[in-house]
Amino acid sequence: MNTLMTDILIIGAGPAGMVAAMTAVQYNPDKKVTVIKSYEKSQVPCGIPYVFGKTLGEVEKNAMVCGGGPIADMIEKITDTVQSVNIETKTAVASNHTIKFDKLIFATGSIPFVHQSFQSALNLENVFTINKEYHKVEQLKDHLLDKKKIIIIGTGFIGVELACELASNDKDVTIVGGGHILAGSFDEDMAVKAEEIMVNKGIKLALGQHANHIIEKDRLAAGIELCDGTIIAADVVLLATGYEPNTLLASRAGLKLARYNGIWVDEFMRTKNKDIFAVGDCSGRRDFITRDPSKVMLASTSAAEARVAGSSLYSIKHLKGFNGTIAIFSTMIGDRAFASAGVTEQRAKNEKIDYVSGFFEGINRHPGTIPDASKQSVKLIAMRESGRIIGGQVVGSKEAGEIINIIGLAIESELTLYSIISLQVATQPLLTSAPTTYPIIMAAQMALRNGKTS
Amino acid sequence: MNTLMTDILIIGAGPAGMVAAMTAVQYNPDKKVTVIKSYEKSQVPCGIPYVFGKTLGEVEKNAMVCGGGPIADMIEKITDTVQSVNIETKTAVASNHTIKFDKLIFATGSIPFVHQSFQSALNLENVFTINKEYHKVEQLKDHLLDKKKIIIIGTGFIGVELACELASNDKDVTIVGGGHILAGSFDEDMAVKAEEIMVNKGIKLALGQHANHIIEKDRLAAGIELCDGTIIAADVVLLATGYEPNTLLASRAGLKLARYNGIWVDEFMRTKNKDIFAVGDCSGRRDFITRDPSKVMLASTSAAEARVAGSSLYSIKHLKGFNGTIAIFSTMIGDRAFASAGVTEQRAKNEKIDYVSGFFEGINRHPGTIPDASKQSVKLIAMRESGRIIGGQVVGSKEAGEIINIIGLAIESELTLYSIISLQVATQPLLTSAPTTYPIIMAAQMALRNGKTS
Repeated sequence: MNTLMTDILIIGAGPAGMVAAMTAVQYNPDKKVTVIKSYEKSQVPCGIPYVFGKTLGEVEKNAMVCGGGPIADMIEKITDTVQSVNIETKTAVASNHTIKFDKLIFATGSIPFVHQSFQSALNLENVFTINKEYHKVEQLKDHLLDKKKIIIIGTGFIGVELACELASNDKDVTIVGGGHILAGSFDEDMAVKAEEIMVNKGIKLALGQHANHIIEKDRLAAGIELCDGTIIAADVVLLATGYEPNTLLASRAGLKLARYNGIWVDEFMRTKNKDIFAVGDCSGRRDFITRDPSKVMLASTSAAEARVAGSSLYSIKHLKGFNGTIAIFSTMIGDRAFASAGVTEQRAKNEKIDYVSGFFEGINRHPGTIPDASKQSVKLIAMRESGRIIGGQVVGSKEAGEIINIIGLAIESELTLYSIISLQVATQPLLTSAPTTYPIIMAAQMALRNGKTS
Repeated sequence: MNTLMTDILIIGAGPAGMVAAMTAVQYNPDKKVTVIKSYEKSQVPCGIPYVFGKTLGEVEKNAMVCGGGPIADMIEKITDTVQSVNIETKTAVASNHTIKFDKLIFATGSIPFVHQSFQSALNLENVFTINKEYHKVEQLKDHLLDKKKIIIIGTGFIGVELACELASNDKDVTIVGGGHILAGSFDEDMAVKAEEIMVNKGIKLALGQHANHIIEKDRLAAGIELCDGTIIAADVVLLATGYEPNTLLASRAGLKLARYNGIWVDEFMRTKNKDIFAVGDCSGRRDFITRDPSKVMLASTSAAEARVAGSSLYSIKHLKGFNGTIAIFSTMIGDRAFASAGVTEQRAKNEKIDYVSGFFEGINRHPGTIPDASKQSVKLIAMRESGRIIGGQVVGSKEAGEIINIIGLAIESELTLYSIISLQVATQPLLTSAPTTYPIIMAAQMALRNGKTS
């Protein structure tokens, strides 16, 4: 058993852990920063769906490359699994190491969430969760090689991305869920555009009702039964039903958990103990708009939290802490990018928010005769009285992935529709919509008009 | 001579005029809105370079389509040339119409600026400015058909875009200018990336000294002579040396002009007379950062001004007027997008601004093994003490055209580097850089670090 001393210990080397470590080094160049992780190799979490289709095609191509650069080189890296943490004595005990620390950051991530009705089926060798560990991804990819009929339960981003990738590899894919796909991030009008593309790719949609249970036959899953009794046969069943915070270590150490079991943290990602931090999927998140606990898990949110924690270890440097997740994300379905931030109209209704929305569909180049021109749709959602922007959805070509970041900045900066309508934007024939019809501005104008007449 | 009555008259139907008209209709649905323009057909101004190469290839494909939609249909359109405006009697006299108005918006645009030393050469039939009128673009395109050696004087966006398009059509192109290309928008470190691409496309760069004069022979331009005596032969000489406000009509009407001869306007685009507005290239612009008069001419800025004017005709609706141009624009050079907003480092130096800058070069997908991954560079410029962001430059794939709009929003919203470092962004393998290395955030971190150590 090696005994090590470090100033700052980070448990976990996913995006949250690595960004926390890099930031800690930058703000505290005189301190020793140590990262401990269970496995030598890890996967880029958001890249996992793409190893199953033509995009990456190989597990190796999705390896997370952490090293390189003078800052990364200043981080001590240990491969070992932490078994327990003693917060009083500031000691972490791993299988082969005992580590004394001054500051500790939990970045232990998340593990697949499996609904109770499917848990017994997890023993069957053709039922899988989408586990982020490197060797688990390899195992799943090997298993799928000679399989044809695949059922994916779950219509979140991972389920949808997996469905598209597997379909591109000639698999017969059925995706199953209780409502429209990506329902947490897109209203029905946007979701149906995505569903249409999926159907055109040959993916079968079994939407509108939940999977009731997994049918077992000869110690294998033979398919699933939906709530209405419909049976869908399958060679493999994939459970893409979300993730839950990996907080066993933290809760055993006596740390308080928040609702949904994330580690409770303040605005600066500190637990009740100001030397102990938690960042990423294992932390207890709040929603930016409602301030309620949030289940959203995103690597980019994790990175933002990690930057706040990494700069706040010894003292609070910036008053802006982490004000809750704006749930900003994007994906590709076919050749279309779908992106979302803040609340959807549906969620605004559920939350009883008095909102207005504006929608505009234009073209992403100008004039529309530019060879790669295609449709571009933007929806904005704002508070009816103040005009403050609280949500947005974008469907378009790849640049939609950055257009949502303009909307995200507007939400985080508490801007209103009034600032947006006279916004100065760069427009260029080969790169953007026309200056006269820039979609975020048009959607803002439309929202203001809708606010007046409704 | 027809005599017409209208509530709101707009002179000019470029981007500024059309957006002003559309906004005027939206805010004043009970008022009659009339647009008067000299020519039936017009060109998308920023699209003009692309009719000369393979991108559009035809003048017709760059026609500006104004009509369509219930709002556009509510605008009365007249084709005629206004000869004089009487502000006291609120009357505009055109060749075939006399129009009485209540509110007037000048949107008369800009005309090519030609340095005195080239003015006499304008009579030669193979010397052209880049005139935005439809038939002039046609004339130039026809003239270039059987010509090979083309000299472009001027290294702004139009000159550079024209050079790339003409080179793609197998022309022998030389571009001439006193410094690096696009020097107003990019620092040398970014400009050289663009120059390298142009050289690889076979474009000859004659940079570092100005063209002295155009050499005349047999009533044609035979080439140019540079300041050091070098002679470059040519079949055609194109003057892409900028534009100046088209304000003859306004000045004859007695309106005050600002420095650089734009029509003087307040923050709401009103002239000294609160019933008379000016928007677009004919208006006197100020710079967002320095508040000095600005020569920047951009259709997107024009559209922003037009939206302010169109909503302020009868009363000021929003306190946010037009706070000056942030000079935000983008272009493509080869397969790389170049985009810029606010001040460059060079300009910050010239203006004696105490600034810091941060630069980051990463990859626009993650992992870097994603098939269409390519380099992405971001530079941010901020006030040293407060960290307030005052400029940015981006080089990358097409999404750089929207990344600059994130930076533009940060500049306009007076955000600081401190807000940016914990910004929540959407990241996705197929669409953006990794969450751990999002380039705007990395550049902001770099700027903060540079601020400390310098």
